[in-house]
Amino acid sequence: MDIYFDNSATTKPYEEVIKAVGDGMREYFGNPSSLHKIGIKCEKRLTECREYISSTIKSDKDEIYFTSGGSEGNNFILKGLLKPGHHFITTSFEHGSIINTCKELEDKGVKITYLDVDQYGNISLEDLEEAITKDTVLVSIMYVNNEMGAIQNIEEIGKLIKEKSTRARLHVDAVQAYGKFDINVKKMNIDFLTVAGHKIHGPKGVGFCYIKKGIVLNPLVSGGEQEKGLRAGTVDLPSIIGLQKAAQITFDHKDETYKKVYELKKYMIERLKEIDDIRINSPLEGNFSPYILNVSFRGVRSEVLLHLLEEQNIYVATGSACSSKVSMSKGSYVIKALGLNAKEIESAIRFSFSYENTKEEVDKAIEVLKGSLIFLRRVRR
Amino acid sequence: MDIYFDNSATTKPYEEVIKAVGDGMREYFGNPSSLHKIGIKCEKRLTECREYISSTIKSDKDEIYFTSGGSEGNNFILKGLLKPGHHFITTSFEHGSIINTCKELEDKGVKITYLDVDQYGNISLEDLEEAITKDTVLVSIMYVNNEMGAIQNIEEIGKLIKEKSTRARLHVDAVQAYGKFDINVKKMNIDFLTVAGHKIHGPKGVGFCYIKKGIVLNPLVSGGEQEKGLRAGTVDLPSIIGLQKAAQITFDHKDETYKKVYELKKYMIERLKEIDDIRINSPLEGNFSPYILNVSFRGVRSEVLLHLLEEQNIYVATGSACSSKVSMSKGSYVIKALGLNAKEIESAIRFSFSYENTKEEVDKAIEVLKGSLIFLRRVRR
Ligand SMILES: Cc1ncc(COP(=O)(O)O)c(C=O)c1O
Ligand SMILES: Cc1ncc(COP(=O)(O)O)c(C=O)c1O
Repeated sequence: MDIYFDNSATTKPYEEVIKAVGDGMREYFGNPSSLHKIGIKCEKRLTECREYISSTIKSDKDEIYFTSGGSEGNNFILKGLLKPGHHFITTSFEHGSIINTCKELEDKGVKITYLDVDQYGNISLEDLEEAITKDTVLVSIMYVNNEMGAIQNIEEIGKLIKEKSTRARLHVDAVQAYGKFDINVKKMNIDFLTVAGHKIHGPKGVGFCYIKKGIVLNPLVSGGEQEKGLRAGTVDLPSIIGLQKAAQITFDHKDETYKKVYELKKYMIERLKEIDDIRINSPLEGNFSPYILNVSFRGVRSEVLLHLLEEQNIYVATGSACSSKVSMSKGSYVIKALGLNAKEIESAIRFSFSYENTKEEVDKAIEVLKGSLIFLRRVRR
Repeated sequence: MDIYFDNSATTKPYEEVIKAVGDGMREYFGNPSSLHKIGIKCEKRLTECREYISSTIKSDKDEIYFTSGGSEGNNFILKGLLKPGHHFITTSFEHGSIINTCKELEDKGVKITYLDVDQYGNISLEDLEEAITKDTVLVSIMYVNNEMGAIQNIEEIGKLIKEKSTRARLHVDAVQAYGKFDINVKKMNIDFLTVAGHKIHGPKGVGFCYIKKGIVLNPLVSGGEQEKGLRAGTVDLPSIIGLQKAAQITFDHKDETYKKVYELKKYMIERLKEIDDIRINSPLEGNFSPYILNVSFRGVRSEVLLHLLEEQNIYVATGSACSSKVSMSKGSYVIKALGLNAKEIESAIRFSFSYENTKEEVDKAIEVLKGSLIFLRRVRR
C-alpha cells in the first residue's frame, strides 16, 4: 500500500471529482462563448461554479477569474499590475512563481523589497510597515508556506496595509491555504487571491484568482472576451466543474479534516521523539499548518532518505515539488530563509497530509525512518 | 437530436478521451516534478505523451511545450519573443489572441505590419516579401482561419522567410489545422507552432507549443522548472494524456475524416443552391478547409438566423465563438478583411464540421434554413 505524504506537492482527486469532470466533458462540452443553447447552458453552469467558488472566500461572483492554476494566477496578478517605477513588497520565501516573476519584474524596472522571515517563518509587521512607501503598489504574501507550513497573519497584514497606504494592494498566494484555513477577502482586506485546484483533490490545470471589483490590470493571456477580457481562451468548463466539486467536498469537511490532520501531526511529532538528532522545523504550536510537517534528520541527506522511504512506498518531499530537482543541489531557499544551519537544511524532509492519511501510516513511516536512519548514520561514521 | 455544426468553436471529446482523462486522474495524479517513484512514473508518462505529440508534427520531443491551450500558446510565443524596437509581421485576420496581443505589443514599442488578405482569404507572398526588413524578428500566420477556413500556403511562406532573412522566425497558429492538415515543422521551416486540444475532440484547458531547438524566449508563466523553465505550474498530466489520446484517434482517422467532411461540405454547397440570394464565402475549391463552410444569407441578420436554427437544435456560429458576443454588433473583422459588403457581413453564418456529422443532418439543416429564410425574408418586406 502506498503511503502518500506529499499532499502539498499535489493531491489525489476525489472520486466524485473524476466523475464530475467526465460528466462535464460529456454534458458541458460546449463553448460558453457560443451564442446558441449549448453555449448558454455552459455559460449558466459556469456562473453556478463562479457563484459557489465566490461563496468560499466571501467575495462577489464577478470577482472570480478562472485560470489554469497557481503559477498562472501569481504571474497574472504580478505582471498584470506592476509597471516600471512601481514599488513591490514580498517575502524572501514565496513560491517560485512569485520569486522568479520578481526577477523578471526587477529587470523591467520594478523596485522590490523582500521581507525576511524569523525562525518561525513569520514576517515582522514592523518590517512591512517600514517598507511601505508612496510608490508601493502591491504587497504579495503567501498565506501558508508550501515547504514549512508557516502561516502569516493575513488579517493583520491587510489591516496594516490599508492603514498605511491608500494605494498599496494586497495579493495573497492562498494555494496552500484554500480549503484549510478561513479566507474572507473583505474582512481580511485582500485585493487579489490565487488558488489552484489540484491542492484540494481537484483537477490539475485549473484554479482561480479573486480580483477585487474596480481594480484595473492587464491580462496575462490576451484575446477573447472570456473572464471579462482578463483571461482569454476557451473556458475549460469540465475542469471548473471538477474544481467546484472538489471545493464543495473540501469545505463540507473542512473542520473535521483539519482536526484529523492536526491529530496526525501531533501523533507523528510525538513518535518522532523516538528518533535522535532531529529538528522539527514546523512545530505543532506557533503559526504552522497542521497539514505540513517539516523535519531535519541531522547527518542525513534528505534525498537519500527520500529514496529509502520510497522503497517502502512512503512518499515525501525535500523542497517544494516544482523546484525539487533544482533545489536538491542548492538546498531549499525557503528553509534557508528560516535561518537553519547547513546540516539542517540538507536533511529537511516535508511530510504533508490529507484527509486520507492515518495513524497506521505514521507508525509505518516511523518504523521505516528508524531503520533507514540507523543504516544511514552507521554508514556515515 | 442535436445537430452540432459548431466544431470550430469547440468539439465534443471522444469517449476514449474522457476515459483516458479519468484514468489519468486516478493512475497519474502525481506531480511529475516529485523526486519519488510516483513522480517518476508521471514524468515517464509525460515523456511518452511528448514523444507521440512530437511525431505528429515531425519535431523532436524536446521541442514540445505543453500549455493550457491556443490563446496561451499564441500569447506565450509573441510576448516571449518580441521586445520594443522589434518588427513583427502578421495578418489582419488572425485570431483574437494574436490581434489583441498585437495591440499590447504596439503600446510597448513593437512595430507591426498587418498583411491584408484577398477575397479568398490568402495573403500575398509579394506583400510578405516586401514587409520583411532587417528588424523583422517574427512573422505569425495562421494555417487555417477559424471563421472562413482559408488555408495559407505555409510551406511557401516558410521558404520565403528563410530566403529573405536569417533573423525572422515563423510562428504558425495551427489551432484549426492540427489533425486536419499535414504539418511538418522541418519541411515547412516553422519555428513556433500553437495547438489547442479541444478542437480535436480532446480536453479543454490543454494544448502545446512547438519551439524550435536553440531559440531563446521568455516564459509567459514563470516559476518552477516545468517544461524546461518555459512554462511553470504543476503539469496537468491527466489532460495531456487526454490530448495524446485525442491526437492518436484523430491522426489514425485523418484522411478518412477529411474525405468524409469534404463530401459533406460539397453536398451542403450543392443543396444550398436551392436557396436564393446567398454567397458561399468559403467555396469547395480554392484554399478553403472542408471543415468550414461560411455562407452569407443576404437580407437576414446572422444572429437571428442562428437563433431560428437553434430552435430546431441546429448549432452554428456567426463570428468566432470567443468573440461572438462582441463581434455580433460590429460584424466580424475577419469577414470584413475579405472585402464582403455590409449585407454579406451581417448575414454570415459558419457551419463547421466533424467526423460525426452526416448528410441527413445537412438535409435537415437545409430544410430548416429554407423555412426560416422564407419567414425572415417575408417579414422584412
Ligand atoms: C485559429 C485559432 N487560434 C487560437 C484559438 C484559441 O484557442 P483557445 O480557445 O484554446 O485558447 C482559436 C480558438 O478559439 C482559434 O480558432
Ligand atoms: C504556495 C504555492 N503557490 C503557488 C503554487 C503553484 O501552483 P501550480 O503548481 O498549480 O501552478 C504552489 C504549488 O505548486 C504553491 O505551493
